[in-house]
Amino acid sequence: MNLPAGPVLALSGGVGGAKLCLGLDDLLPAGQLHIACNTADDFGHLGLTICPDIDTVLYTLGGVSNPHQGWGLDGESWQVLAALEQLGADSWFRLGDRDLATHLWRAGELARGASLSAVTAELGRRLEVQAAVYPMSDDPVRTVVHTAEGDLPFQHYFVREQCRPRVHGFSFAGLDAAVLQANLADLCASRTLAGVIICPSNPFVSIDPILQLDSFWQTLRESQVPVLAVAPIVAGQALKGPAAKMMAELNLPVTATGVAAHYAEHYPGLIGTFVVDHSDATLVPAIQKLGMEVEVTVTIMRERADKQALAAACLELLCR
Amino acid sequence: MNLPAGPVLALSGGVGGAKLCLGLDDLLPAGQLHIACNTADDFGHLGLTICPDIDTVLYTLGGVSNPHQGWGLDGESWQVLAALEQLGADSWFRLGDRDLATHLWRAGELARGASLSAVTAELGRRLEVQAAVYPMSDDPVRTVVHTAEGDLPFQHYFVREQCRPRVHGFSFAGLDAAVLQANLADLCASRTLAGVIICPSNPFVSIDPILQLDSFWQTLRESQVPVLAVAPIVAGQALKGPAAKMMAELNLPVTATGVAAHYAEHYPGLIGTFVVDHSDATLVPAIQKLGMEVEVTVTIMRERADKQALAAACLELLCR
Repeated sequence: MNLPAGPVLALSGGVGGAKLCLGLDDLLPAGQLHIACNTADDFGHLGLTICPDIDTVLYTLGGVSNPHQGWGLDGESWQVLAALEQLGADSWFRLGDRDLATHLWRAGELARGASLSAVTAELGRRLEVQAAVYPMSDDPVRTVVHTAEGDLPFQHYFVREQCRPRVHGFSFAGLDAAVLQANLADLCASRTLAGVIICPSNPFVSIDPILQLDSFWQTLRESQVPVLAVAPIVAGQALKGPAAKMMAELNLPVTATGVAAHYAEHYPGLIGTFVVDHSDATLVPAIQKLGMEVEVTVTIMRERADKQALAAACLELLCR
Repeated sequence: MNLPAGPVLALSGGVGGAKLCLGLDDLLPAGQLHIACNTADDFGHLGLTICPDIDTVLYTLGGVSNPHQGWGLDGESWQVLAALEQLGADSWFRLGDRDLATHLWRAGELARGASLSAVTAELGRRLEVQAAVYPMSDDPVRTVVHTAEGDLPFQHYFVREQCRPRVHGFSFAGLDAAVLQANLADLCASRTLAGVIICPSNPFVSIDPILQLDSFWQTLRESQVPVLAVAPIVAGQALKGPAAKMMAELNLPVTATGVAAHYAEHYPGLIGTFVVDHSDATLVPAIQKLGMEVEVTVTIMRERADKQALAAACLELLCR
């Protein structure tokens, strides 16, 4: 297997992105994998700053995640949540006891003045994660979901409402003022990046915020680094999360082509290669028409070997 | 038994004060007991605002406290603390899971802009506490313990260092700028108060902050409301906590007389009656010389009946 010579940057949301990141982390030598995590679905809850995507990536790469649900921790208990329910407090966001320890530790560090980047790096060390994991920004950015029932903060839409309300758009509060995380900016400026992998995460609420932040997509395009994206839609279905439902409600074709078209429209010239599953091989000509090369492989990641295989395919593409 | 006709105000720290408050709450009709809690040992920890005295009083009056240790909750579990230890986070402050639910709920309310008074009142409602419990102030006041090993925030001295360092004084950061809690100020201004009971709490770190806040002791003295204090030292020992050790280190006599002298010196003319235990009956003349009446009774509160008996004796004194 060919491995790129320089650093590789993955852009990731939560569960789906974390799976591919785990495969990449298994294959790349220490120090070579950098991961920019979406923070637009972070939210303040019970005085805590909760960072679902960062934590899912760190828990997955640290080998402590719940393998069945893809988020949260293995061997979790729920004592605090039960007591919150007894107190009559909000309990729709399912905070496990072990997960709460992470949030409390982070809250303490943030209260002392540490940046989210510093806290994330330290949490990575404590979980013995090899990859460098960064929030996309140290400034708060918060997704607002525009729905038929009014605007909802992302976690209210996603967790409390279980993605039920019909979506007609998104905005990212704080995005215009937010600055790209410093290591990510340095990584681009260094011109050493071997490639960027856009993980099979939700294009609208996980990847768009990262790419739009501080004109990051333009910085990447101008640097001419190879960029590939893995389709989060396979055979018309999102493997995880509400991407397919959102696309239908936004009147987009619920296909890998629809995702590629979204990226081509908003980030013209950014993505060189689009990776789709074998079951979507018929879509290749349509995606090629958008100006992208297309790679067809297995993108469904059930076992560790699947994650490594897809990671290997992506890394191979970056060596071309 | 005679009961005062008007509202009664108790000034309380943690465990010892909460015991007498429970007795008072058992005897007084609904709406008549008001409790001003010390907040100078509150502290910020893991991003939370922890209010040990308020919580001890509310947990005790709500019937949910741990009956063996006097603080914390009955039937507590420790999942989060174990996870914090695994993470390598500070774990010297023993936060139980059920207790954490209180702190998290409070943090959420404070983050939404609620005052500590409002949060305390609402927590009292949720725990079905009959008495009105107030923080002494909505403004932060923090005890600093001056020790032979340098200045320590109160909980570092009290919990982390287990009161080991030798004390030579105290200061209360924020006290000068803090305003007396509004209901307490109203209660004094209404001139309806039937009496004030200074609970058998630590004079230096529990009662001094309340009395010194916003010149509260002078307001009370000028209102001519009857004020009695219950000695927290019995037969030369503090029943709970570091009061006796502190008095020895401050070169004060470690007796009920020492406590009365401290109050007489700092709050001249405030306390009309000082309540001591039978075992300290020989101290009566010395305390009388300080200008106080002295009541001798049983002040050790082991059982619920002891708390009620001491409460009855105090209420009887306020009827004279």
